[in-house]
Amino acid sequence: MSDIKAATLEYATRLGDDSVVLGHRISEWVSYGPFLEEDIAYGNVSLDYIGRARMFYTYAAELAADGRDEDDFAFMRNDREYRNLLLMEMPKGDFAYSQVRQLFADVYYTVLLPELLQSKDETLSAIAAKAIKETKYHLRRSRDWVLRLGDGTEESHKRTQKAVDQLWGYTHEMFDMDETEQLLADEGIGVDVSKLRDAWLKMVTDILTEATITVPEDSWAVRGGRTGYHTENLGHMLTEMQIVHRSNPGCKW
Amino acid sequence: MSDIKAATLEYATRLGDDSVVLGHRISEWVSYGPFLEEDIAYGNVSLDYIGRARMFYTYAAELAADGRDEDDFAFMRNDREYRNLLLMEMPKGDFAYSQVRQLFADVYYTVLLPELLQSKDETLSAIAAKAIKETKYHLRRSRDWVLRLGDGTEESHKRTQKAVDQLWGYTHEMFDMDETEQLLADEGIGVDVSKLRDAWLKMVTDILTEATITVPEDSWAVRGGRTGYHTENLGHMLTEMQIVHRSNPGCKW
Repeated sequence: MSDIKAATLEYATRLGDDSVVLGHRISEWVSYGPFLEEDIAYGNVSLDYIGRARMFYTYAAELAADGRDEDDFAFMRNDREYRNLLLMEMPKGDFAYSQVRQLFADVYYTVLLPELLQSKDETLSAIAAKAIKETKYHLRRSRDWVLRLGDGTEESHKRTQKAVDQLWGYTHEMFDMDETEQLLADEGIGVDVSKLRDAWLKMVTDILTEATITVPEDSWAVRGGRTGYHTENLGHMLTEMQIVHRSNPGCKW
Repeated sequence: MSDIKAATLEYATRLGDDSVVLGHRISEWVSYGPFLEEDIAYGNVSLDYIGRARMFYTYAAELAADGRDEDDFAFMRNDREYRNLLLMEMPKGDFAYSQVRQLFADVYYTVLLPELLQSKDETLSAIAAKAIKETKYHLRRSRDWVLRLGDGTEESHKRTQKAVDQLWGYTHEMFDMDETEQLLADEGIGVDVSKLRDAWLKMVTDILTEATITVPEDSWAVRGGRTGYHTENLGHMLTEMQIVHRSNPGCKW
């Protein structure tokens, strides 16, 4: 396999991992939403992410060409083999926590996907095209919720600020580059995420400020997801996510 | 396979399931004990139960003679295939809850095992002989804790009474007989547990009374474990218990 093909396989896996992990975390809200319409809406966002993961994994399986399919990527790798950003694996927490994480992710995709759309790799570009449309809707929701909660009651404001403070240190990893991603960026296949932080920070700052939430100092950062060093949360999550598949190996529906 | 052999296989599986499920629940206390000595002591009780499960499962595997081993019985059956008493699968709850459940189980084995010791089946009798010694120690611990908590502070008394009230309806199933167990009791292989409730109730009543705890009315009962109809707790527990084995099928250490 060429270096570029190997890097693209790794890249598609990373992006798929981000999507399936966040999609699963959102799915944990199903039947627990604050009201029915919101419950269904958030469930749909989860399906968007899981659908996106399928596209990335299918492409990864095609590149790997070793007999694995999308399900093998999702269900047959352990936490050390997952390459998602730590932000995505944090537990759902309370509703403010999940919506703040959602805002951080939605703004991230808002700045990332238009760049990925320009990829020379037609499959990655096509996935980006579909995901851009979804992201507009996702961001409208998470932005509305953060405004509503941040600029809401004393309790909702307190919880929103706490969520922002607790999650801030997990956002820096989103803009890290390594050799794999640099190679793909140089080739016009991947995105140089290190150039996206200013745009992300401006959008996030505007929304948080409008929500009367204080933007934290950059005083700490946790990294490791892209190299397989995860928080303990991912292992527990994958245990639940994978048990049905692992209990019925090779099962056909 | 003869009817008696098939019944003995089912019986060994049931007794093994009771042991592994309770053993796992106890193990959930490891590192959370109220003080170090208690932490280690309770961990040892867990190991006694898991060791007992191994003996029952090894015998079950021998009777089944279909290539399965003890690990297959523990790790490769789902919740609908488990045959444990519901009492054993209830979540660990607070310390009073776990100790009350432990008392109910320890008294059960105190009255059950001397009967199983008389079994014509030499393997079941030998397992009973070993378990009787362990049970004396187990009962001393759980009895001491229920006395200490029931006759302790207002808070510990309240929690102990609540645990007794919440668990009482799960104790009736321990004394149910079905065709399988009746066949084995008639053959002098299994125990007629329906005859054990009076002795169990007397011991439990004496201890609870000394602990200033009120013995509940028999106003409700939940059953189903022996036929595979479990509470939702078992599925979640088995998910955690089985993920390592199911993630590494056929792995040799």
